[in-house]
Amino acid sequence: MEGYRILEIKQSVFENNDREADRLREELKKNRTFLLNLMSSPGSGKTTTLRRTIEALKDELRIGVMEADIDSDVDAATIEKTGVKVIQLHTGGMCHLDAGMTKQGLEGLGVEDVDLAILENIGNLVCPAEFDTGAVKNAMILSVPEGDDKPLKYPLMFSVCDVLLINKIDVLPYFDFDIEKCSEYVRRLNPNMKIIPISSRTGEGIGAWADWLREQTRAWIEG
Amino acid sequence: MEGYRILEIKQSVFENNDREADRLREELKKNRTFLLNLMSSPGSGKTTTLRRTIEALKDELRIGVMEADIDSDVDAATIEKTGVKVIQLHTGGMCHLDAGMTKQGLEGLGVEDVDLAILENIGNLVCPAEFDTGAVKNAMILSVPEGDDKPLKYPLMFSVCDVLLINKIDVLPYFDFDIEKCSEYVRRLNPNMKIIPISSRTGEGIGAWADWLREQTRAWIEG
Repeated sequence: MEGYRILEIKQSVFENNDREADRLREELKKNRTFLLNLMSSPGSGKTTTLRRTIEALKDELRIGVMEADIDSDVDAATIEKTGVKVIQLHTGGMCHLDAGMTKQGLEGLGVEDVDLAILENIGNLVCPAEFDTGAVKNAMILSVPEGDDKPLKYPLMFSVCDVLLINKIDVLPYFDFDIEKCSEYVRRLNPNMKIIPISSRTGEGIGAWADWLREQTRAWIEG
Repeated sequence: MEGYRILEIKQSVFENNDREADRLREELKKNRTFLLNLMSSPGSGKTTTLRRTIEALKDELRIGVMEADIDSDVDAATIEKTGVKVIQLHTGGMCHLDAGMTKQGLEGLGVEDVDLAILENIGNLVCPAEFDTGAVKNAMILSVPEGDDKPLKYPLMFSVCDVLLINKIDVLPYFDFDIEKCSEYVRRLNPNMKIIPISSRTGEGIGAWADWLREQTRAWIEG
């Protein structure tokens, strides 16, 4: 039997998503829970990166994961094996999560005993960038096979994120991907973006990413 | 100076997109123009595949290309080098194209002298699947690095397409991607899907894809 629930989330009824997102952050602050919103294209390696992140941090932080997908529960099943609390959110066709939907997810997950909550958003570089989920920080993954020109085409996503993980660097020799060029495109949109090259397959760079996330989480829950 | 225009397309005013799409197909039929809607995640290789497709067919068919993007004109600049007619469509943040927007694009491109018009849709596996653009056929690309489980997560896209190109098969040795398993997932959703493995880098499989597209185009414009 699965140890995780599947929650069918409903479209939000709130007119003002930004206000709802601010309220959610206040609640999270009171509860001493840090919420990370993780976004990327389909297949960039969100779930594998998440598994590595959990391995790196689960002995220090109490972690809870919300896996959002239009359909299927393959990701929740993967994350469950790490031993952390996980819930699968089904959006019923919706291409993004907003603050109201994230709130439903957090209630379904239960965050009383969670220091670090992670929302794996729908695989989409467009729509999720337009909605504040109430997360404390936004992270995104761009993987090497997707190409270094993606900041030019999906500028909003690269503008709203605090950290960019450039994933699948183990396959750099097989693709034309210039990390310097990509970073330059990103910095033009977002000079403060923290950029961390990683390979969720080999584990390279996961230490630097876990350090960043640990520091952000501690600053929020202890601040 | 660039040889292509950039057209800022507006949100559609039509209430009934399906009816508008049917009307657009009727117009295309009268004009003897076949319209292909090409969809995929960001970075799956739409533009490179398109370049290969144009090379394979441009001596037999008069081709016109609409490059849709939220921003930038890197794709139109790439396609222009092939010598075919091309226009860059900017959607102003919109995550998909509907029939009304496609109609604006076709008018901007001019299809009186076009046998095969190709719309490169926004890189997104979610929203574009929900809107009939008025295309005669829908094609999608899934690339090997994205993973073979994508049909489970984005079922609508795999349901509405007529043909699936599995791209980047030249890097199969470096990824865990099972073509058989992927095809089985796809066929459960869409038993009629034509599946063609390709590498737009090496050219492998492009012949089979060009054959399919030539046949579809001829049947439409001569039928």
